[in-house]
Amino acid sequence: MSTEYKAKTRLYLASDLAAGRDIPLNKDQAHYLRNVLRADTGAKIHVFNGRDGEYVAEFDGKTSIVTGTQTESQKSDLDVWVLFAPVKKDQTDFILQKCTELGASVLQPVFTDYTNTERFNIERAAANVIEASQQSRRLTVPAVKQADSLKNILAAWPKDRALIFCDEMRTSPPLPKILADMQGQKPAFLSGPEGGFSAKERDYLNSLPFVKSANLGPRVLRAETAAMTGLAVYGAIYGDWK
Amino acid sequence: MSTEYKAKTRLYLASDLAAGRDIPLNKDQAHYLRNVLRADTGAKIHVFNGRDGEYVAEFDGKTSIVTGTQTESQKSDLDVWVLFAPVKKDQTDFILQKCTELGASVLQPVFTDYTNTERFNIERAAANVIEASQQSRRLTVPAVKQADSLKNILAAWPKDRALIFCDEMRTSPPLPKILADMQGQKPAFLSGPEGGFSAKERDYLNSLPFVKSANLGPRVLRAETAAMTGLAVYGAIYGDWK
Repeated sequence: MSTEYKAKTRLYLASDLAAGRDIPLNKDQAHYLRNVLRADTGAKIHVFNGRDGEYVAEFDGKTSIVTGTQTESQKSDLDVWVLFAPVKKDQTDFILQKCTELGASVLQPVFTDYTNTERFNIERAAANVIEASQQSRRLTVPAVKQADSLKNILAAWPKDRALIFCDEMRTSPPLPKILADMQGQKPAFLSGPEGGFSAKERDYLNSLPFVKSANLGPRVLRAETAAMTGLAVYGAIYGDWK
Repeated sequence: MSTEYKAKTRLYLASDLAAGRDIPLNKDQAHYLRNVLRADTGAKIHVFNGRDGEYVAEFDGKTSIVTGTQTESQKSDLDVWVLFAPVKKDQTDFILQKCTELGASVLQPVFTDYTNTERFNIERAAANVIEASQQSRRLTVPAVKQADSLKNILAAWPKDRALIFCDEMRTSPPLPKILADMQGQKPAFLSGPEGGFSAKERDYLNSLPFVKSANLGPRVLRAETAAMTGLAVYGAIYGDWK
Protein backbone atom coordinates (compact mmCIF):
# COMPACT_ATOMS: atom_id res chain seq x y z
CA MET A 1 0.00 0.00 0.00
CA SER A 2 1.40 3.39 -0.86
CA THR A 3 1.98 5.98 1.84
CA GLU A 4 0.42 8.80 -0.20
CA TYR A 5 -2.53 10.72 1.15
CA LYS A 6 -5.66 8.64 1.44
CA ALA A 7 -9.14 10.05 1.43
CA LYS A 8 -10.79 8.89 4.66
CA THR A 9 -14.04 7.84 3.06
CA ARG A 10 -14.18 4.58 1.18
CA LEU A 11 -17.25 3.06 -0.39
CA TYR A 12 -17.89 -0.48 -1.51
CA LEU A 13 -19.76 -0.51 -4.81
CA ALA A 14 -21.25 -3.34 -6.85
CA SER A 15 -20.45 -1.66 -10.21
CA ASP A 16 -17.47 -2.50 -12.39
CA LEU A 17 -14.69 0.03 -11.90
CA ALA A 18 -12.38 1.66 -14.41
CA ALA A 19 -11.00 5.19 -14.78
CA GLY A 20 -13.41 7.89 -15.96
CA ARG A 21 -16.70 6.19 -15.22
CA ASP A 22 -19.82 7.95 -14.05
CA ILE A 23 -21.31 5.61 -11.44
CA PRO A 24 -24.68 6.08 -9.72
CA LEU A 25 -24.71 5.65 -5.95
CA ASN A 26 -27.52 3.88 -4.17
CA LYS A 27 -29.83 5.92 -1.94
CA ASP A 28 -28.04 5.05 1.30
CA GLN A 29 -24.62 5.89 -0.10
CA ALA A 30 -25.78 9.21 -1.54
CA HIS A 31 -27.47 10.06 1.77
CA TYR A 32 -24.32 9.13 3.69
CA LEU A 33 -22.08 11.37 1.59
CA ARG A 34 -24.47 14.30 1.42
CA ASN A 35 -26.13 14.32 4.82
CA VAL A 36 -23.81 12.46 7.18
CA LEU A 37 -20.41 13.52 5.86
CA ARG A 38 -21.76 16.76 4.34
CA ALA A 39 -19.52 16.11 1.35
CA ASP A 40 -19.44 18.94 -1.22
CA THR A 41 -19.44 18.64 -4.98
CA GLY A 42 -15.96 17.48 -5.98
CA ALA A 43 -15.24 15.75 -2.64
CA LYS A 44 -12.72 12.93 -3.06
CA ILE A 45 -13.50 9.43 -1.87
CA HIS A 46 -12.13 5.98 -2.59
CA VAL A 47 -14.20 3.19 -4.08
CA PHE A 48 -13.66 -0.58 -4.45
CA ASN A 49 -15.77 -3.54 -5.55
CA GLY A 50 -13.71 -6.58 -4.53
CA ARG A 51 -12.59 -7.23 -8.13
CA ASP A 52 -11.01 -4.16 -9.72
CA GLY A 53 -8.78 -2.71 -7.00
CA GLU A 54 -9.37 0.74 -5.52
CA TYR A 55 -10.02 4.00 -7.38
CA VAL A 56 -10.16 7.58 -6.29
CA ALA A 57 -13.48 9.17 -7.24
CA GLU A 58 -15.15 12.57 -7.15
CA PHE A 59 -18.61 13.11 -5.73
CA ASP A 60 -20.97 15.08 -7.97
CA GLY A 61 -22.71 16.51 -4.91
CA LYS A 62 -25.92 14.61 -5.69
CA THR A 63 -26.23 10.92 -6.55
CA SER A 64 -23.14 9.88 -8.54
CA ILE A 65 -19.39 9.66 -8.45
CA VAL A 66 -16.89 9.88 -11.28
CA THR A 67 -13.86 7.60 -11.00
CA GLY A 68 -10.32 8.92 -11.45
CA THR A 69 -7.12 6.86 -11.36
CA GLN A 70 -6.64 3.47 -9.74
CA THR A 71 -5.04 3.85 -6.30
CA GLU A 72 -4.54 0.13 -5.57
CA SER A 73 -4.51 -2.88 -7.81
CA GLN A 74 -6.59 -5.87 -6.74
CA LYS A 75 -4.69 -8.29 -4.49
CA SER A 76 -5.51 -11.87 -3.74
CA ASP A 77 -7.05 -12.33 -0.32
CA LEU A 78 -6.29 -14.56 2.61
CA ASP A 79 -8.22 -17.79 2.14
CA VAL A 80 -9.41 -18.45 5.67
CA TRP A 81 -12.90 -19.20 6.89
CA VAL A 82 -14.40 -18.44 10.29
CA LEU A 83 -17.27 -20.55 11.62
CA PHE A 84 -18.85 -19.06 14.72
CA ALA A 85 -21.91 -19.68 16.87
CA PRO A 86 -24.04 -16.51 16.97
CA VAL A 87 -23.90 -15.01 20.46
CA LYS A 88 -25.52 -11.83 21.78
CA LYS A 89 -26.09 -9.11 19.20
CA ASP A 90 -23.14 -6.92 20.21
CA GLN A 91 -20.73 -9.84 20.38
CA THR A 92 -21.88 -11.18 17.01
CA ASP A 93 -21.32 -7.70 15.53
CA PHE A 94 -17.91 -7.74 17.14
CA ILE A 95 -16.99 -11.12 15.63
CA LEU A 96 -18.06 -9.94 12.18
CA GLN A 97 -16.20 -6.64 12.47
CA LYS A 98 -12.93 -7.97 13.91
CA CYS A 99 -12.78 -11.01 11.62
CA THR A 100 -13.26 -8.67 8.66
CA GLU A 101 -10.43 -6.42 9.88
CA LEU A 102 -8.22 -9.46 10.33
CA GLY A 103 -8.87 -10.77 6.84
CA ALA A 104 -11.38 -13.65 7.03
CA SER A 105 -12.65 -14.60 3.55
CA VAL A 106 -15.83 -16.44 4.63
CA LEU A 107 -17.96 -15.92 7.75
CA GLN A 108 -20.25 -18.86 8.49
CA PRO A 109 -22.72 -18.66 11.39
CA VAL A 110 -23.27 -22.09 12.95
CA PHE A 111 -26.07 -23.29 15.20
CA THR A 112 -24.72 -25.64 17.86
CA ASP A 113 -26.34 -27.51 20.76
CA TYR A 114 -25.71 -24.65 23.19
CA THR A 115 -26.25 -21.73 20.81
CA ASN A 116 -28.68 -19.53 22.69
CA THR A 117 -30.13 -17.73 19.73
CA GLU A 118 -32.29 -19.19 16.97
CA ARG A 119 -31.83 -16.38 14.52
CA PHE A 120 -29.08 -14.79 12.56
CA ASN A 121 -29.78 -11.56 10.72
CA ILE A 122 -27.82 -11.90 7.51
CA GLU A 123 -28.76 -8.43 6.20
CA ARG A 124 -27.42 -6.80 9.35
CA ALA A 125 -24.30 -8.95 9.12
CA ALA A 126 -23.72 -8.06 5.47
CA ALA A 127 -23.98 -4.34 6.28
CA ASN A 128 -21.52 -4.82 9.15
CA VAL A 129 -18.86 -6.52 7.08
CA ILE A 130 -19.17 -3.92 4.31
CA GLU A 131 -18.63 -1.15 6.86
CA ALA A 132 -15.65 -2.94 8.37
CA SER A 133 -14.18 -3.59 4.91
CA GLN A 134 -14.56 0.09 3.97
CA GLN A 135 -12.87 1.25 7.18
CA SER A 136 -10.08 -1.30 7.24
CA ARG A 137 -9.08 -0.60 3.62
CA ARG A 138 -9.67 -4.18 2.54
CA LEU A 139 -10.05 -4.52 -1.21
CA THR A 140 -12.69 -7.21 -0.72
CA VAL A 141 -15.72 -7.91 1.45
CA PRO A 142 -15.92 -11.29 3.19
CA ALA A 143 -18.76 -13.59 2.17
CA VAL A 144 -21.38 -13.95 4.91
CA LYS A 145 -23.11 -17.34 4.63
CA GLN A 146 -26.62 -18.32 5.70
CA ALA A 147 -26.63 -19.75 9.21
CA ASP A 148 -26.84 -23.54 9.27
CA SER A 149 -26.53 -26.39 11.76
CA LEU A 150 -23.08 -27.71 12.67
CA LYS A 151 -24.22 -31.12 11.41
CA ASN A 152 -25.12 -29.86 7.93
CA ILE A 153 -21.95 -27.83 7.63
CA LEU A 154 -19.74 -30.74 8.66
CA ALA A 155 -21.56 -33.10 6.27
CA ALA A 156 -20.67 -30.87 3.31
CA TRP A 157 -17.11 -30.08 4.41
CA PRO A 158 -14.53 -29.61 1.58
CA LYS A 159 -11.65 -32.09 1.61
CA ASP A 160 -8.88 -29.55 1.12
CA ARG A 161 -9.65 -27.48 4.24
CA ALA A 162 -8.76 -28.14 7.86
CA LEU A 163 -11.29 -27.13 10.52
CA ILE A 164 -9.43 -25.77 13.53
CA PHE A 165 -11.53 -26.28 16.60
CA CYS A 166 -10.79 -23.52 19.14
CA ASP A 167 -11.51 -25.59 22.18
CA GLU A 168 -10.72 -25.09 25.84
CA MET A 169 -9.13 -28.51 26.03
CA ARG A 170 -5.72 -28.18 27.58
CA THR A 171 -4.53 -31.41 25.97
CA SER A 172 -4.62 -30.15 22.37
CA PRO A 173 -1.44 -28.95 20.66
CA PRO A 174 -0.94 -25.18 20.58
CA LEU A 175 -2.29 -23.39 17.51
CA PRO A 176 1.12 -22.50 15.98
CA LYS A 177 1.97 -26.22 15.92
CA ILE A 178 -1.37 -27.11 14.30
CA LEU A 179 -0.78 -24.46 11.63
CA ALA A 180 2.77 -25.69 11.01
CA ASP A 181 1.51 -29.25 10.48
CA MET A 182 -1.28 -28.43 8.03
CA GLN A 183 0.71 -29.45 4.94
CA GLY A 184 -0.92 -27.12 2.49
CA GLN A 185 -4.49 -27.52 3.72
CA LYS A 186 -6.41 -24.26 3.89
CA PRO A 187 -7.66 -23.23 7.36
CA ALA A 188 -11.04 -22.59 8.90
CA PHE A 189 -11.57 -21.67 12.56
CA LEU A 190 -14.53 -22.82 14.61
CA SER A 191 -15.54 -21.03 17.80
CA GLY A 192 -18.47 -22.05 19.94
CA PRO A 193 -21.18 -20.25 21.89
CA GLU A 194 -20.75 -18.96 25.45
CA GLY A 195 -21.53 -22.34 26.94
CA GLY A 196 -19.00 -24.13 24.71
CA PHE A 197 -19.72 -27.32 22.78
CA SER A 198 -21.74 -30.28 24.08
CA ALA A 199 -19.92 -33.54 24.85
CA LYS A 200 -21.66 -35.10 21.84
CA GLU A 201 -20.48 -32.32 19.50
CA ARG A 202 -16.99 -32.52 20.92
CA ASP A 203 -16.77 -36.29 20.35
CA TYR A 204 -18.16 -35.98 16.85
CA LEU A 205 -15.79 -33.14 15.93
CA ASN A 206 -12.81 -35.07 17.26
CA SER A 207 -13.80 -38.13 15.21
CA LEU A 208 -13.58 -36.24 11.90
CA PRO A 209 -10.28 -36.47 10.00
CA PHE A 210 -10.30 -32.81 8.91
CA VAL A 211 -10.87 -31.41 12.41
CA LYS A 212 -7.82 -30.25 14.39
CA SER A 213 -8.36 -29.34 18.02
CA ALA A 214 -6.12 -26.41 19.01
CA ASN A 215 -4.98 -24.90 22.28
CA LEU A 216 -5.19 -21.09 22.33
CA GLY A 217 -3.33 -20.66 25.58
CA PRO A 218 -3.91 -21.19 29.28
CA ARG A 219 -6.53 -18.47 29.67
CA VAL A 220 -10.11 -19.24 28.71
CA LEU A 221 -11.02 -16.94 25.83
CA ARG A 222 -14.56 -15.70 25.45
CA ALA A 223 -16.54 -17.00 22.47
CA GLU A 224 -16.03 -13.76 20.55
CA THR A 225 -12.29 -13.62 21.28
CA ALA A 226 -11.36 -17.14 20.19
CA ALA A 227 -12.01 -16.91 16.43
CA MET A 228 -10.32 -13.56 16.01
CA THR A 229 -7.31 -14.70 18.02
CA GLY A 230 -6.86 -17.69 15.72
CA LEU A 231 -7.18 -15.44 12.71
CA ALA A 232 -4.62 -12.94 14.04
CA VAL A 233 -2.07 -15.69 14.66
CA TYR A 234 -2.68 -17.27 11.26
CA GLY A 235 -2.42 -13.90 9.50
CA ALA A 236 0.83 -13.01 11.26
CA ILE A 237 2.61 -16.32 10.61
CA TYR A 238 1.19 -17.49 7.27
CA GLY A 239 -0.83 -14.56 6.00
CA ASP A 240 -0.11 -11.31 4.27
CA TRP A 241 1.71 -9.36 7.00
CA LYS A 242 4.71 -8.40 4.93
CA MET B 1 -4.47 -26.90 33.73
CA SER B 2 -6.27 -30.06 34.80
CA THR B 3 -9.32 -31.25 32.91
CA GLU B 4 -11.29 -31.99 36.10
CA TYR B 5 -14.61 -30.33 36.75
CA LYS B 6 -14.31 -26.63 37.38
CA ALA B 7 -16.84 -24.62 39.33
CA LYS B 8 -18.01 -21.86 37.01
CA THR B 9 -17.74 -19.10 39.55
CA ARG B 10 -14.34 -17.70 40.40
CA LEU B 11 -13.62 -14.83 42.72
CA TYR B 12 -10.53 -12.69 43.05
CA LEU B 13 -9.78 -12.00 46.70
CA ALA B 14 -7.19 -9.81 48.37
CA SER B 15 -6.71 -12.21 51.33
CA ASP B 16 -3.87 -14.72 51.66
CA LEU B 17 -5.02 -18.18 50.63
CA ALA B 18 -4.28 -21.56 52.18
CA ALA B 19 -6.40 -24.66 52.79
CA GLY B 20 -9.01 -24.49 55.56
CA ARG B 21 -9.27 -20.73 55.96
CA ASP B 22 -12.43 -18.89 56.79
CA ILE B 23 -12.32 -15.76 54.63
CA PRO B 24 -14.79 -12.88 54.79
CA LEU B 25 -16.15 -11.64 51.45
CA ASN B 26 -16.65 -7.98 50.75
CA LYS B 27 -20.19 -6.65 50.39
CA ASP B 28 -20.25 -6.82 46.58
CA GLN B 29 -18.94 -10.37 46.47
CA ALA B 30 -21.42 -11.61 49.08
CA HIS B 31 -24.26 -9.84 47.23
CA TYR B 32 -23.12 -11.38 43.93
CA LEU B 33 -23.08 -14.93 45.29
CA ARG B 34 -26.29 -14.64 47.28
CA ASN B 35 -28.50 -12.43 45.11
CA VAL B 36 -27.14 -12.68 41.57
CA LEU B 37 -26.06 -16.32 41.47
CA ARG B 38 -28.51 -17.39 44.20
CA ALA B 39 -25.76 -19.60 45.58
CA ASP B 40 -26.82 -21.84 48.47
CA THR B 41 -24.91 -22.66 51.62
CA GLY B 42 -22.16 -25.09 50.62
CA ALA B 43 -21.99 -23.86 46.99
CA LYS B 44 -18.54 -24.45 45.52
CA ILE B 45 -16.58 -21.64 43.93
CA HIS B 46 -12.95 -21.06 43.06
CA VAL B 47 -10.86 -18.28 44.54
CA PHE B 48 -7.47 -16.77 43.64
CA ASN B 49 -5.45 -13.78 44.75
CA GLY B 50 -2.65 -13.52 42.18
CA ARG B 51 -0.06 -14.98 44.58
CA ASP B 52 -1.18 -18.32 46.04
CA GLY B 53 -2.69 -20.18 43.08
CA GLU B 54 -6.35 -21.21 42.98
CA TYR B 55 -8.39 -22.90 45.70
CA VAL B 56 -11.80 -24.46 45.75
CA ALA B 57 -13.98 -22.89 48.46
CA GLU B 58 -17.39 -23.36 50.00
CA PHE B 59 -19.82 -20.51 50.47
CA ASP B 60 -21.32 -20.26 53.95
CA GLY B 61 -24.53 -18.84 52.48
CA LYS B 62 -23.92 -15.46 54.10
CA THR B 63 -20.71 -13.45 54.01
CA SER B 64 -17.76 -15.86 54.06
CA ILE B 65 -16.14 -18.72 52.24
CA VAL B 66 -14.07 -21.58 53.63
CA THR B 67 -11.18 -22.70 51.43
CA GLY B 68 -10.62 -26.38 50.59
CA THR B 69 -7.75 -27.79 48.55
CA GLN B 70 -5.56 -25.95 46.08
CA THR B 71 -6.79 -26.55 42.51
CA GLU B 72 -3.93 -24.76 40.69
CA SER B 73 -0.50 -23.74 41.84
CA GLN B 74 0.60 -20.21 41.06
CA LYS B 75 2.28 -19.85 37.66
CA SER B 76 4.47 -17.06 36.44
CA ASP B 77 2.69 -14.72 34.09
CA LEU B 78 3.46 -13.38 30.67
CA ASP B 79 5.50 -10.21 31.10
CA VAL B 80 3.97 -8.00 28.45
CA TRP B 81 2.64 -4.49 28.77
CA VAL B 82 -0.07 -2.81 26.76
CA LEU B 83 -0.12 0.97 26.35
CA PHE B 84 -3.32 2.26 24.80
CA ALA B 85 -5.00 5.58 24.17
CA PRO B 86 -8.42 5.62 25.88
CA VAL B 87 -11.13 5.59 23.22
CA LYS B 88 -14.91 5.53 23.65
CA LYS B 89 -16.16 3.84 26.81
CA ASP B 90 -17.20 0.55 25.17
CA GLN B 91 -13.99 0.25 23.21
CA THR B 92 -11.86 1.03 26.25
CA ASP B 93 -13.76 -1.67 28.16
CA PHE B 94 -13.11 -3.97 25.25
CA ILE B 95 -9.37 -3.28 25.24
CA LEU B 96 -9.18 -3.95 28.98
CA GLN B 97 -11.23 -7.16 28.74
CA LYS B 98 -9.53 -8.68 25.70
CA CYS B 99 -6.00 -7.76 26.80
CA THR B 100 -6.73 -9.40 30.17
CA GLU B 101 -7.98 -12.57 28.43
CA LEU B 102 -4.87 -12.59 26.25
CA GLY B 103 -2.50 -12.25 29.20
CA ALA B 104 -1.27 -8.64 29.43
CA SER B 105 0.55 -8.01 32.72
CA VAL B 106 0.30 -4.20 32.74
CA LEU B 107 -2.35 -1.96 31.17
CA GLN B 108 -1.23 1.64 30.79
CA PRO B 109 -3.67 4.27 29.48
CA VAL B 110 -1.82 6.96 27.51
CA PHE B 111 -2.98 10.44 26.53
CA THR B 112 -1.76 11.29 23.04
CA ASP B 113 -2.21 14.36 20.80
CA TYR B 114 -5.34 12.95 19.19
CA THR B 115 -6.82 11.19 22.23
CA ASN B 116 -10.38 12.45 22.29
CA THR B 117 -11.07 11.87 25.95
CA GLU B 118 -9.51 13.67 28.88
CA ARG B 119 -10.47 11.16 31.50
CA PHE B 120 -9.79 7.58 32.34
CA ASN B 121 -11.84 5.95 35.07
CA ILE B 122 -9.33 3.74 36.84
CA GLU B 123 -11.90 2.28 39.29
CA ARG B 124 -14.11 1.15 36.42
CA ALA B 125 -11.06 -0.27 34.63
CA ALA B 126 -9.89 -2.15 37.73
CA ALA B 127 -13.35 -3.73 38.13
CA ASN B 128 -13.29 -4.71 34.44
CA VAL B 129 -9.94 -6.45 34.57
CA ILE B 130 -10.90 -8.31 37.77
CA GLU B 131 -14.07 -9.59 36.07
CA ALA B 132 -12.14 -10.62 32.96
CA SER B 133 -9.48 -12.35 35.08
CA GLN B 134 -12.15 -14.25 37.01
CA GLN B 135 -13.86 -15.43 33.83
CA SER B 136 -10.74 -16.27 31.85
CA ARG B 137 -9.28 -18.38 34.68
CA ARG B 138 -6.17 -16.25 34.95
CA LEU B 139 -4.35 -16.73 38.22
CA THR B 140 -3.47 -13.05 38.30
CA VAL B 141 -5.06 -9.70 37.63
CA PRO B 142 -3.22 -7.27 35.34
CA ALA B 143 -2.02 -4.01 36.89
CA VAL B 144 -3.99 -1.00 35.63
CA LYS B 145 -1.83 2.12 35.80
CA GLN B 146 -2.89 5.73 36.18
CA ALA B 147 -3.34 7.42 32.82
CA ASP B 148 -0.41 9.65 31.88
CA SER B 149 0.88 11.57 28.87
CA LEU B 150 2.87 9.75 26.21
CA LYS B 151 5.74 12.17 26.90
CA ASN B 152 5.92 11.32 30.61
CA ILE B 153 5.68 7.61 29.97
CA LEU B 154 8.42 7.66 27.35
CA ALA B 155 10.67 9.78 29.59
CA ALA B 156 10.56 7.10 32.30
CA TRP B 157 10.83 4.11 29.98
CA PRO B 158 12.74 1.06 31.33
CA LYS B 159 15.87 0.10 29.39
CA ASP B 160 15.14 -3.61 29.21
CA ARG B 161 11.77 -3.31 27.44
CA ALA B 162 11.01 -2.74 23.76
CA LEU B 163 8.02 -0.57 22.89
CA ILE B 164 6.30 -2.02 19.83
CA PHE B 165 4.52 0.74 18.04
CA CYS B 166 1.43 -0.67 16.25
CA ASP B 167 1.47 1.82 13.44
CA GLU B 168 -0.26 1.84 10.07
CA MET B 169 3.04 2.48 8.32
CA ARG B 170 3.42 -0.02 5.54
CA THR B 171 7.20 0.35 5.55
CA SER B 172 7.75 -1.23 8.99
CA PRO B 173 8.80 -4.87 9.32
CA PRO B 174 5.99 -7.30 10.15
CA LEU B 175 5.40 -7.99 13.85
CA PRO B 176 6.72 -11.61 13.83
CA LYS B 177 10.08 -10.30 12.55
CA ILE B 178 10.19 -7.56 15.20
CA LEU B 179 9.49 -10.15 17.91
CA ALA B 180 12.16 -12.51 16.53
CA ASP B 181 14.76 -9.70 16.62
CA MET B 182 14.09 -8.53 20.18
CA GLN B 183 17.10 -10.36 21.65
CA GLY B 184 15.70 -10.96 25.09
CA GLN B 185 14.06 -7.56 25.54
CA LYS B 186 10.61 -7.73 27.10
CA PRO B 187 7.73 -6.39 24.98
CA ALA B 188 5.20 -3.62 25.35
CA PHE B 189 2.60 -2.76 22.70
CA LEU B 190 1.45 0.78 21.98
CA SER B 191 -1.82 1.44 20.17
CA GLY B 192 -3.12 4.89 19.40
CA PRO B 193 -6.50 6.62 19.41
CA GLU B 194 -8.97 6.47 16.51
CA GLY B 195 -7.22 9.31 14.71
CA GLY B 196 -3.80 7.68 15.00
CA PHE B 197 -0.66 9.46 16.15
CA SER B 198 0.34 13.00 15.18
CA ALA B 199 3.32 13.50 12.85
CA LYS B 200 5.24 14.96 15.81
CA GLU B 201 4.53 11.91 17.99
CA ARG B 202 5.42 9.59 15.17
CA ASP B 203 8.79 11.30 14.58
CA TYR B 204 9.57 11.34 18.27
CA LEU B 205 8.63 7.67 18.73
CA ASN B 206 10.77 6.66 15.76
CA SER B 207 13.75 8.58 17.16
CA LEU B 208 13.79 6.53 20.37
CA PRO B 209 16.13 3.51 20.45
CA PHE B 210 13.68 1.27 22.34
CA VAL B 211 10.76 1.89 19.97
CA LYS B 212 10.13 -0.68 17.21
CA SER B 213 7.57 0.21 14.61
CA ALA B 214 5.66 -2.91 13.50
CA ASN B 215 3.41 -3.78 10.58
CA LEU B 216 0.25 -5.64 11.63
CA GLY B 217 -0.81 -6.54 8.13
CA PRO B 218 -2.29 -4.81 5.09
CA ARG B 219 -5.69 -4.08 6.62
CA VAL B 220 -6.04 -1.04 8.87
CA LEU B 221 -6.94 -2.31 12.35
CA ARG B 222 -9.16 -0.22 14.59
CA ALA B 223 -7.55 1.29 17.67
CA GLU B 224 -9.09 -1.35 19.93
CA THR B 225 -8.05 -4.23 17.67
CA ALA B 226 -4.38 -3.38 17.27
CA ALA B 227 -3.13 -3.95 20.82
CA MET B 228 -4.96 -7.23 21.30
CA THR B 229 -3.78 -8.51 17.93
CA GLY B 230 -0.16 -7.86 18.90
CA LEU B 231 -0.74 -9.59 22.21
CA ALA B 232 -2.34 -12.65 20.56
CA VAL B 233 0.59 -13.05 18.17
CA TYR B 234 3.15 -12.59 20.95
CA GLY B 235 1.34 -15.06 23.19
CA ALA B 236 1.12 -17.69 20.47
CA ILE B 237 4.75 -17.50 19.37
CA TYR B 238 6.63 -16.59 22.56
CA GLY B 239 4.08 -16.88 25.32
CA ASP B 240 2.53 -19.66 27.32
CA TRP B 241 0.44 -21.47 24.68
CA LYS B 242 1.84 -24.91 25.35
